[in-house]
Amino acid sequence: MQNLIICGGAGTRLWPISTPENPKQFLQIFQKKSLFQLTLERNSHFCERFLVILGQKQRNIAKKQANAALNTNFMLEPVGRNTAPAIGLACFSVNPEEIFLVSPADHLIKADESYKLALQKAETLAKKGNLVTFGISPTYAETGYGYIEAKGEAVLSFCEKPELAVAQSYLEAGNYLWNSGMFCFKAGVYLQELSRHAPEIFQACKAAYQNSSEGLVRMEDMLQIPKESIDYAVMEKSDKVKVVPFAGGWSDLGSFDSLFGVVNSDESVSIDSSNNLVIAEGKTVALLGVRDSIVVADGDNILVCHKGESQKVKDVCEMLAKKKKKREAGSL
Amino acid sequence: MQNLIICGGAGTRLWPISTPENPKQFLQIFQKKSLFQLTLERNSHFCERFLVILGQKQRNIAKKQANAALNTNFMLEPVGRNTAPAIGLACFSVNPEEIFLVSPADHLIKADESYKLALQKAETLAKKGNLVTFGISPTYAETGYGYIEAKGEAVLSFCEKPELAVAQSYLEAGNYLWNSGMFCFKAGVYLQELSRHAPEIFQACKAAYQNSSEGLVRMEDMLQIPKESIDYAVMEKSDKVKVVPFAGGWSDLGSFDSLFGVVNSDESVSIDSSNNLVIAEGKTVALLGVRDSIVVADGDNILVCHKGESQKVKDVCEMLAKKKKKREAGSL
Repeated sequence: MQNLIICGGAGTRLWPISTPENPKQFLQIFQKKSLFQLTLERNSHFCERFLVILGQKQRNIAKKQANAALNTNFMLEPVGRNTAPAIGLACFSVNPEEIFLVSPADHLIKADESYKLALQKAETLAKKGNLVTFGISPTYAETGYGYIEAKGEAVLSFCEKPELAVAQSYLEAGNYLWNSGMFCFKAGVYLQELSRHAPEIFQACKAAYQNSSEGLVRMEDMLQIPKESIDYAVMEKSDKVKVVPFAGGWSDLGSFDSLFGVVNSDESVSIDSSNNLVIAEGKTVALLGVRDSIVVADGDNILVCHKGESQKVKDVCEMLAKKKKKREAGSL
Repeated sequence: MQNLIICGGAGTRLWPISTPENPKQFLQIFQKKSLFQLTLERNSHFCERFLVILGQKQRNIAKKQANAALNTNFMLEPVGRNTAPAIGLACFSVNPEEIFLVSPADHLIKADESYKLALQKAETLAKKGNLVTFGISPTYAETGYGYIEAKGEAVLSFCEKPELAVAQSYLEAGNYLWNSGMFCFKAGVYLQELSRHAPEIFQACKAAYQNSSEGLVRMEDMLQIPKESIDYAVMEKSDKVKVVPFAGGWSDLGSFDSLFGVVNSDESVSIDSSNNLVIAEGKTVALLGVRDSIVVADGDNILVCHKGESQKVKDVCEMLAKKKKKREAGSL
């Protein structure tokens, strides 16, 4: 199997430590390793080759963080067009019989026995010509994820991010799984299904790949490719889709709240304080009478957030971007 | 009148913005002015000359912040010995008939009509040979200040920082005033009373002043002077003490809590947040769902504190100092 690592990510959900220049997957906050590095490490037990597809700007940091002992290639997108094209470009670059394990670079997954079993099952199904998606057994009624309605290996439907009441009914029903963004299939099968269900993307990817050189896709070709997710372009339409449930430790780390208990808290001194998360490398942080709070500092940027509200960090980024724009307009 | 400005202060109560090198009185956080500058400005309406007594290390910052248009002299202590010696040294340097308005550099006082009237009354009493202390009409049962039990101009007793129940009884009684640390008297009268009630301090100050040159007291002389407050050495013992009540706006700014409503909050972006104080010049601070909190950042130091608990900042400083010591011992 070859591991295709999708390394996109806007970097707004973990501001200020993640930024467009230094997105989440490259932050070395997990015992000094990044999620990208943990992904390589985890999958090196199952894959001999790695293909990393990522934004051109992140080439240097990715090459620096990659493990030199692993057989790793890079494909560079001058601009992102979502997952269906990224995976399409990657599939054109290999033998159609090659099996890809597709994994986002920014998820935290425990590489335990259940992970191993899920990968083995997925590989077997992929060999038979299926498009395999991985579904995480939900542990609570999360409203921030899409769901997969499953019946054994069969997918009955893909469900958008639900309202809370709907998420609760999914949890009770027992056969709804979180859509993980991980996949497994033969490159040729994916391209076949892409050409059938999203022929425009297929054609544009084919042309873009043919014009690319040394792993770098040209900007003008990239802009010709419609933006689309793999779920919408292929998985929701193809009749070759199977789902492999996975009940292991998984987190998409989409917010600081999801980092509680996962990364070490950094506070230097704390008095009458409890249940806080502090991420502030190289800083001295004192907490006084602070509870259920998130404090993140990087450079001259500081976030203080009540626990449970860190989903709104992207709004902070938007507001700061607007302020910056205004300031720049004012100074012209 | 000459204004004697006592510029001591350890700088631990407003950490991290105040430090031993940059104590509270020199922080330019009041519309870009420091408390030291505001003290000069406020008293320039009543005094023609200024004598600033301060630690040797703070000479440069004080000279930089002083208003060149004012007649200002400096007396430098290589090490602090509390207020009784500081004021004693100053009194030796002037004509015994000179009237000193003694004021700490780190209080915030509104220079309104009631301040003017209090100063006029104090000057009149000082001319008659009294040691005048200023008592602030309390607005709540503060346990962090000493109190003066008054009967008109007469002082019945000086009271230590009280327990809450005692402070409440003071507030109800109506004739207890906060001990402000401001005084007014003739230099000669202070020295006379100092020689009567604290002859050791008087003698040591006299010798230290005689050996000083260009306003700088010698270290070996300074170390001979017993440490004592003016209250304990003189005011509580002398029968020449009078009190002038002052009901104007006054704050000793002894904690970040006392800065609420006094300095501008610095937050850059704030969502679902209210009643916070942010002091973080040059930083971008985002608050998300944060209420009743204090966030202070300076350099690489960050304090997050729940409102009402900022008295404990000095404990933070102690803990950090201990940690530093331990670290240094460990690296030897």
